[in-house]
This record gives sequence, structure tokens and C-alpha cells, in this order.
Amino acid sequence: MDGVSVRPVPGIGEVRPGDDVAALITGALRAANLSLLDGDVVVVTHKIVSKAEGQVVELPDDGPDSHRRLVEEQAEAIIRRRGNLVIAQTKHGFICANAGVDRSNAGPGRAILLPEDPDRSANRIRIRLGREFGAEIAVLITDTFGRAWRRGLVDVAIGVAGMAAVTDLRGETDQHGKVLEVTEVATADEIAAAADLVMGKATGIPVAIVRGVAWRPDTEGVRALIRDAEDDLFR
Amino acid sequence: MDGVSVRPVPGIGEVRPGDDVAALITGALRAANLSLLDGDVVVVTHKIVSKAEGQVVELPDDGPDSHRRLVEEQAEAIIRRRGNLVIAQTKHGFICANAGVDRSNAGPGRAILLPEDPDRSANRIRIRLGREFGAEIAVLITDTFGRAWRRGLVDVAIGVAGMAAVTDLRGETDQHGKVLEVTEVATADEIAAAADLVMGKATGIPVAIVRGVAWRPDTEGVRALIRDAEDDLFR
Repeated sequence: MDGVSVRPVPGIGEVRPGDDVAALITGALRAANLSLLDGDVVVVTHKIVSKAEGQVVELPDDGPDSHRRLVEEQAEAIIRRRGNLVIAQTKHGFICANAGVDRSNAGPGRAILLPEDPDRSANRIRIRLGREFGAEIAVLITDTFGRAWRRGLVDVAIGVAGMAAVTDLRGETDQHGKVLEVTEVATADEIAAAADLVMGKATGIPVAIVRGVAWRPDTEGVRALIRDAEDDLFR
Repeated sequence: MDGVSVRPVPGIGEVRPGDDVAALITGALRAANLSLLDGDVVVVTHKIVSKAEGQVVELPDDGPDSHRRLVEEQAEAIIRRRGNLVIAQTKHGFICANAGVDRSNAGPGRAILLPEDPDRSANRIRIRLGREFGAEIAVLITDTFGRAWRRGLVDVAIGVAGMAAVTDLRGETDQHGKVLEVTEVATADEIAAAADLVMGKATGIPVAIVRGVAWRPDTEGVRALIRDAEDDLFR
């Protein structure tokens, strides 16, 4: 197809600590008669990665206090707090609600944390799937974040392997030959958002294949998407 | 296709004041042998809408001062300022760099403003294209915004017609039967981001068709995406 396609990968069931995410994705792709081609981006919601890596915490109870304590443990810094809403910076540098602690899809009395090192998790999956399907691919691990100023949540990349998360257009010109003012596009976040259109929140689809994006190979990972504190006007 | 497709609409040339955007899109679709089907979302970068509506300003000179004056005119409120960077709230309620004033793709000595009423512009296009192709469609008008905390820009919806910009999952449950914590998905922004993957900044593709998203019909427009000042922790 001329353009970009976003395809859900069905058939990945409940994931447990110690599971091999790359093997689960491979099995689901084979069962659905899907393959990976050069240039494909495999988008994986962090929840199945966190579960496989054992990043699940048993809460002593289901009340707000034990949840709040866990959020504070996971936070490197609290950016804002209002009522039960905590916007915090994680040790990875992400700024998000509850420092990434999530009780949805965790099972009763449990919470899911972010992966320890999402770039490393993404890279492991990239190497395994690339070898399995003989393709040069990129892998994104995603989470669902709120935004300042805008309502509604969007999926963003929290782990990036194989591709440049930000596409640098510096020096390129518009149709009038004027140098572009918009110079850095958050391509990985746009792919994450596109993937969420087929993954949904309640559908149980944790993986999507995005095909047709012209990304640039790179090894910097998600750090390219994190604004340094000194450049940031909103913390 | 099972999933979502994002298709660029080529062949829309330079747009001038008074041009009929719906007619231009219709012509480009017919020339490319493309049609619109029920459920399609037509994504249009605001630049061609602003140009057609005459929202283009001649600057007295190309220097930073005349640009800054224009930004201040367009701003309802200045949220942050550092050096030449101004984050401002527009009269529509958007918070973005330079109050939406953009000198790229404007031509020398000119700047493009946001459309006066992007929801109205989107709805006009929706009605015309819907009638032309006999299809129930939605239309988004998009711009490229920066984000707090994250580097790189993403396209977001600034005008919405036909669909609910935010998908409300309140009351839905996860795979364990637990009520979801993530309840409001910014579907229109995720579609805008997906569309930018084929539109790019330097490619001259101002329109894309996103097919396969299950949106809900609604008339609220972009207001659903704007966080009220009193709910916002970052202004």
C-alpha cells in the first residue's frame, strides 16, 4: 500500500513473569499468518513487557494509601500534586501520572510498574524478531500518557530500539525554499499514537505492526524524546 | 485491511485565498483514483485551510520584531517566554508556540495564522466531501505542536467535525474485570499523529485519509480536547 498501515497482532494472551515476549509475538504473528518486513515497526505496550520482566507489585490493600506510597517510591521527583492526581518524574526521565504505576490490567491487589530499562527491553525484542523474520525492524515500547493543556490520553514511546525517535529536519526547506521552522518531529511518538488506534485500552491487543514509515536507523533510544530539565519551561 | 490505513493524498498544489479546499481535495482524490468510504477520517493540515480562508499576514519585514508583534496580537495570554520562544494561548484555547503563527510554507515576508474557527472549517469540508462521495466521514484540521517535557513535535487536531475527539471509556473494564483507570483517549490527536506519518513537513502533502478507526459521531468539535484552565496544573 502507498502509505502507512497499522495492523493489530491478535492472540497474545495473559503474560506472566518469566515469559519470553519475543517468542509470544513470534507465535502470534505465525498463527495469524503475518510476517515482518524490512522497515516494519513493532509496537508493544509496556504492560506485557513489565509483566514478563516481573515488574509487578503486590499491594497490601486496594486503598489509595498503599497506591500513593508505591507512586512515591517510583517517583524521582513530584512535579505537581492535586488530590489523588500525582504528576511525577520517573527515574527514566519520563513525566507522567502516578510515576507510571498502573493498576489496570494488573489483576486484583496488584500494580504494574514501568520496565527497568525500556530501551534494553525493546532492543532484545528487536534482535530476536529481526533474526526470526530476517528483517531490519524497529521496536517501540509504549505507555499511555496525559498531556499538559490537552484533555485525553495518547500513547507515547517509552522504549525505542533500531530507529531514531526524533526525525531531524534541520536544514530542509519548505515549498518556497524557506528553511523549516519545525525541525524535530517526534516520529516514535507519532507511531505510538497510530498503533494505539488498533490496540485500544480494553481490547486486549498489546502489539501492533506499523508498516510504511521511513525511519532512520539509530541507537540513541528514548533519550532523544526527553527534554532536559534546563530546557523545559513546565516543571 | 484488518487494522488502520493512512494514505497520503497527492496532487494538491499551492493554495490561494478564496480557493475551495473541499473542491481541491475532491479533485485530488478523483485524480488519484481514490474514494471516500463510510468511517473515513480526512485529515487536513491547517495551512491550506488558513491560506484558502485568507488567514495570511504580510509582515513589514522578515525580522524577529515584526514576528513577535504578530505573535502578541494573536495571543490571548502568554503562558511562558524564553528568548525568542513564546508559548501562548490562542483565542481558540490552544496552548502552543507562537500562538500558532507560522512562517514556514507562507512565502517570503508572510506568516500564516490559524483558521478563525477550525471546527467550522472542518465541518464545511466534511459536508461537501460527504455529499460528493456519499459517505459518512469525519474531518480533522491539524497543526504541529510541541509538548511540555518531551522533545520533538507532533501533529494534533485543532478542528474536529463529525466525530468525538475524545473516546470515553468510563465504565469499561480490563481483562480482569477491573474498571479502567485510563478513561479518556484523545482519539482525534492519535489520528492526527498517524496522518503526519505520511504528510511530513517538507513533502508538500497536506491531506491524508485515515481508514479503519471506529470513531463515535459527535458534534462537540475540538473543545473536547481543551483542558479548562482550572483543571490544568501547567499554566
